[in-house]
Amino acid sequence: MIEPLFDKLAIVGIGLQGSSIARGARVKGLVRRIAIADTSPDHLERAEALALGDSLHAGADAAVEDADLVILCVPVGACEDVAKLIARDLKPGAIVTDVGSVKGSVVRQMRPHLPGHVHFIPGHPVAGTEYSGPDAGFAELFENRWCILTPDETADPTAIARLTGFWRGLGANVETMTADHHDLVLAITSHVPHLIAYNIVGTAADLEEVTQSEVMKFSAGGFRDFTRIAASDPTMWRDVFLHNKEAVIEVLGRFTEDLIALQRHIRWGEADELFDLFTRTRAIRRGIIGMGQETPAPDFGRRKGS
Amino acid sequence: MIEPLFDKLAIVGIGLQGSSIARGARVKGLVRRIAIADTSPDHLERAEALALGDSLHAGADAAVEDADLVILCVPVGACEDVAKLIARDLKPGAIVTDVGSVKGSVVRQMRPHLPGHVHFIPGHPVAGTEYSGPDAGFAELFENRWCILTPDETADPTAIARLTGFWRGLGANVETMTADHHDLVLAITSHVPHLIAYNIVGTAADLEEVTQSEVMKFSAGGFRDFTRIAASDPTMWRDVFLHNKEAVIEVLGRFTEDLIALQRHIRWGEADELFDLFTRTRAIRRGIIGMGQETPAPDFGRRKGS
Repeated sequence: MIEPLFDKLAIVGIGLQGSSIARGARVKGLVRRIAIADTSPDHLERAEALALGDSLHAGADAAVEDADLVILCVPVGACEDVAKLIARDLKPGAIVTDVGSVKGSVVRQMRPHLPGHVHFIPGHPVAGTEYSGPDAGFAELFENRWCILTPDETADPTAIARLTGFWRGLGANVETMTADHHDLVLAITSHVPHLIAYNIVGTAADLEEVTQSEVMKFSAGGFRDFTRIAASDPTMWRDVFLHNKEAVIEVLGRFTEDLIALQRHIRWGEADELFDLFTRTRAIRRGIIGMGQETPAPDFGRRKGS
Repeated sequence: MIEPLFDKLAIVGIGLQGSSIARGARVKGLVRRIAIADTSPDHLERAEALALGDSLHAGADAAVEDADLVILCVPVGACEDVAKLIARDLKPGAIVTDVGSVKGSVVRQMRPHLPGHVHFIPGHPVAGTEYSGPDAGFAELFENRWCILTPDETADPTAIARLTGFWRGLGANVETMTADHHDLVLAITSHVPHLIAYNIVGTAADLEEVTQSEVMKFSAGGFRDFTRIAASDPTMWRDVFLHNKEAVIEVLGRFTEDLIALQRHIRWGEADELFDLFTRTRAIRRGIIGMGQETPAPDFGRRKGS
C-alpha cells in the first residue's frame, strides 16, 4: 500500500465513472477520505449501500469543502452549473478536474467561474462500458487505459504531476495534449463511432421491409456489435455531440465522403479498391491489439453461443 | 449419439465456416464420413493436421463423389466455378447447399450448372468471427445462431427437412425465406454494418491531424469495436459487396439519409431529437440480448484491462 496521494477526494456525480474512481481510489489507497455528491437520491442511496464514500451529499458545494482533489463526473452539459455551485467552497490549492469526453467546452464552461487559487486541469479517462450508474462501476475500469489531461500553459507542473500520479495509481497511462487536439482525436476515436452506431441502429429500426424481429435474430452478422455503444447513456452522449459540434461535424464530413466513394466502388464493381481497403483496415486492428488496447480473443471473447 | 443424418458430407473450402461445420458434424455424429476440398495446399495441410476430414482433395469434383450432402464454403464470387466443376460428379439425390452471405447471386451462379437430379437448397448460417482459415473454426460456432435457408418453390420438402435437421444438429435455429428477402435482411444486419466499419477505420487511418498511434491508443473510446468486423476476411467481403450490390446500395442510402439528418440535429443543437434516438437504440440492444443473440456482460465480456 502506498502513502495516500490526497487527503480528501470529492467526486461530483456517482455514475459509471465516479463510482469506478471511488472504488479504485479505495482499493489502491490513493486517498484518505471520499466525499460523494449526486443530485439523484437513487444514486446516493446506491452509493451508500455500496459503501462507495465516507460522506454523501445532495449538493456538490458541501462535498468539495476541504477536498484536495475534486473530480466532476457529470454529463458535459452540466459542468458550468457545477462550477458555479462549488466555486466559493473550493479549498485554496485544490486540484479541480473532470472526466468529460469533451474538453474545449468544459474549459469554456468552468474556467470563468473557478477561483484563481485552485488548479484546474481538465481530464478524460478513455474508458467505459455501455452500462451507467453507481452499480456499473468497478475498480479496474481504468487499468491499461489512457487518461488524457489538457492543462493550459498556465497550469502548475506540480499539480499536473500529482493528478498524473492519481490516474497512474488507478492503473491508467497518462498523456497530455491541448483541449482542441483532444476534441479532434476523440471525435474520430469515440464520438463519430458512437454517432454512426446510434445511426445504424436507428436505420435498422425504421426499415419498412425488414421486421424488428428479423433485425434482432440475425444481428450476429455484425449489427449487434454496434448496438453495444448505441446502448450508452443518452444524456451523456447528447451532451457530447452538442458540445463537440465542430470537430464531430468535421470528422463526420470525412466519413461521409469516404463512404460515398466506397459506395461508388461497389456500384462500379471496383474489386481491387474494396480488397485494398479491407486489407488495410485489418492491419489497424492488429496494431490496437499490439498496443494492449484490445483483446485478441475471437469475437471480443464473447461466450460461445451468446 | 444420434444416428448419422448423412453418410458422406463433402465440404468445399475449409476456412472458418467449413472447418466449423467439419468439427461440429464430427462432434455431434451427424455424418459418417467427411471429404474436404480446398484449392489451397496450406489449408489442406492444416485440415490434415487437425484431422478435420476422412479424405482431402485439391479438386472439389473428387470430393463430392458419392456425397449425400455437399456444402460450398467458398467466397460468394467462387460459386459459379465450383458449380461447373462439381456438376458431373454429383450423386443423384444429393443435397447441394452453401454458406454464402448473399443468396440471390449464388442462385444465379449455380442453378444453371447443377443437374436436375440434385436438391439445391441455398443456405446461410449467420455466425462467424473475425478470424479466417481452418484453425479458426470451432464446433460451437453455430450454437444458438440462426441459419437461413432459401429454397425456391420447386424444392423438395424432404430435402429441406433433412438439411434443416443437419443445421439443428449443429446447434442452429433454422428459418426459411426467399433469396431476395435474405439479401435485404442481411444488407442491414451484416453487410452495411461491415461496410461502415471498414469505412470508419479507413477514415481514421487517413486523417492528417490525428496520428495512427493516437487512433490506436484512444480506440477504447468506441473505435476499437468497429475494428473487429473490419478485420474480417477481405476476399469474402469484397465478394459480398460485389454480389449484393443492389440491396447494399439501397440500405446504405437509408443509412446516409439518416446520418445527414442526425448531423443536422447536431448542427442546430436539437437536443431532444438526439436524446430520443439514443434512448430508442438502447431498447434494441435489450431486445437482442433477450433473444439470446448477445451477451449482457459489460463490454462484450472483454477481459478487464484489454
